[in-house]
Amino acid sequence: MSRRFIAAACQLGSISRSESRASVVARMIALLRQAKERGASLAVFPEMALTTFFPRWLIADEEELDSFYEKEMPSNETAPLFEEARRLGLGFYLGYAELFRDAAGRKRRFNTSVLVDRAGRIVGKYRKVHLPGHAEYEPERPWQHLEKRYFEVGDLGFPVWRTMGGVMGMCLCNDRRWPETWRVMGMKGVELVMLGYNTPTANSVAAHEGAHVRMLHNHLSMQAGAYQNATWAIGTAKGGLEEGVDMMAGSCIVAPTGEIVALATTVGDEVIAADVDLERGRYIKETVFNFAKHRRIEHYGIITGQTAATPPPD
Amino acid sequence: MSRRFIAAACQLGSISRSESRASVVARMIALLRQAKERGASLAVFPEMALTTFFPRWLIADEEELDSFYEKEMPSNETAPLFEEARRLGLGFYLGYAELFRDAAGRKRRFNTSVLVDRAGRIVGKYRKVHLPGHAEYEPERPWQHLEKRYFEVGDLGFPVWRTMGGVMGMCLCNDRRWPETWRVMGMKGVELVMLGYNTPTANSVAAHEGAHVRMLHNHLSMQAGAYQNATWAIGTAKGGLEEGVDMMAGSCIVAPTGEIVALATTVGDEVIAADVDLERGRYIKETVFNFAKHRRIEHYGIITGQTAATPPPD
Repeated sequence: MSRRFIAAACQLGSISRSESRASVVARMIALLRQAKERGASLAVFPEMALTTFFPRWLIADEEELDSFYEKEMPSNETAPLFEEARRLGLGFYLGYAELFRDAAGRKRRFNTSVLVDRAGRIVGKYRKVHLPGHAEYEPERPWQHLEKRYFEVGDLGFPVWRTMGGVMGMCLCNDRRWPETWRVMGMKGVELVMLGYNTPTANSVAAHEGAHVRMLHNHLSMQAGAYQNATWAIGTAKGGLEEGVDMMAGSCIVAPTGEIVALATTVGDEVIAADVDLERGRYIKETVFNFAKHRRIEHYGIITGQTAATPPPD
Repeated sequence: MSRRFIAAACQLGSISRSESRASVVARMIALLRQAKERGASLAVFPEMALTTFFPRWLIADEEELDSFYEKEMPSNETAPLFEEARRLGLGFYLGYAELFRDAAGRKRRFNTSVLVDRAGRIVGKYRKVHLPGHAEYEPERPWQHLEKRYFEVGDLGFPVWRTMGGVMGMCLCNDRRWPETWRVMGMKGVELVMLGYNTPTANSVAAHEGAHVRMLHNHLSMQAGAYQNATWAIGTAKGGLEEGVDMMAGSCIVAPTGEIVALATTVGDEVIAADVDLERGRYIKETVFNFAKHRRIEHYGIITGQTAATPPPD
């Protein structure tokens, strides 16, 4: 399969709490068609792309909570997306809330993404490892961020898949801020990392943190992760005013050089595309980031040896 | 000691092969005085600040090679720098090539930096871990990069020191590109990372890599390392045309938000300064990068478990 193709980030504007999956899927299909017009054969959708970002509310009613999760993928409601992508010959990345019952009958909830190849087959699944936010209701917050309540920590690590011409990886939202996310995939030779995100424009607990700084963090994390592992990265946002919370857009495609080569300019439904050559990162992997030659794991032990920081005594 | 002070990056322009240490030290003292005029109480000098960047040559004569290394610190030649800094009440970071004989009489060579407190005492030493370049002469290169020949891999890890009001760390040049460098210090609660660098403006083995991309990499690495560990960073370059090789300048001071708050605008001897509040990173360390809450070391094993990347089979 070709190592060079056009890839698209399919940014979504806001999704209200009442919007149906059928409506969202119709928007996504429209974006897929635009991506195809741009020549794309791979499309990346946001995190939890099928519904509003529900962790912003404490939802006590379990049936209501469960209504935000997908119990199968594809489902009756998402099948049209899979069918249209297959018809158009586009692979895609899709983020969604996943709910299933395990062998013991226990409900399991993950913040998940799947990678679908150009024939419409699910070839990879990822479950978010770095869950941000908190598990209990915090009354001082103007909106909640209850990912630690509504999801378990991902149990699949950071796999990569050799598909669609290269070594593909996935992560979700807050994962992008953690260099470990990128490095684990980098150690597996990743060439393209896909990720969706739902990030508010404002920091609800640090009003002094400007929107421009938060966008800097968004791009900085992806650019550094891409450069330091010589991989492409496609980051796709949910943008716009969603249920009273302004969501950061700023979807982008980053080259293995760390350069942003495509950038969304709206906060709504928008397709951006770039010519992705998976060979582009090779010289970086063979020179400055030739891990075999330059990494010194004998000095890295604390990174995996402990979770928390331990500053020296006062 | 105060957690808030003014810090300076003291960038050096080119140093020719024939320039004496006395001449370089005089330039550095002039920069220290400028830093003092700017109100600084901490100054950061470049990597191998006392001589030209000698790893660009294959130097067969051992006596000549040894002449680029410091055999003691301070020495007769560097003592005036220490004395002036003490007189002015400035702590400083100094990079230099270190040579000593170990107990077995063997010559040991490291690319080293020291941290000197405001009383003129050496309070910390670091030896470069991530040596770039190569060990053997490579005739296809317009200039050599023989750091792997002239230095051993640092044997001190990435220590931090509680001094001058905070938790201080050091690294050198190529170390800044490796997220492991920053994370190891981040795990130790670092609040200010000092680093010097000698980086050519052009990539001698990848002419297609533009100077602007190399400056992006320079700043991107420091900004990401600072943000992802909520630490200040001061990166000080050697700049200008040095023995036919154009050296990247771009010295900068980066806040724990990842923002560049001071930036050199010349390629010569230049002082830049910023108001450093070591408390600035606290909210980041307590929220988005609260390691205890969010890191998932059970999924990071490959980072320390192996040196080389292992892509999936074709």
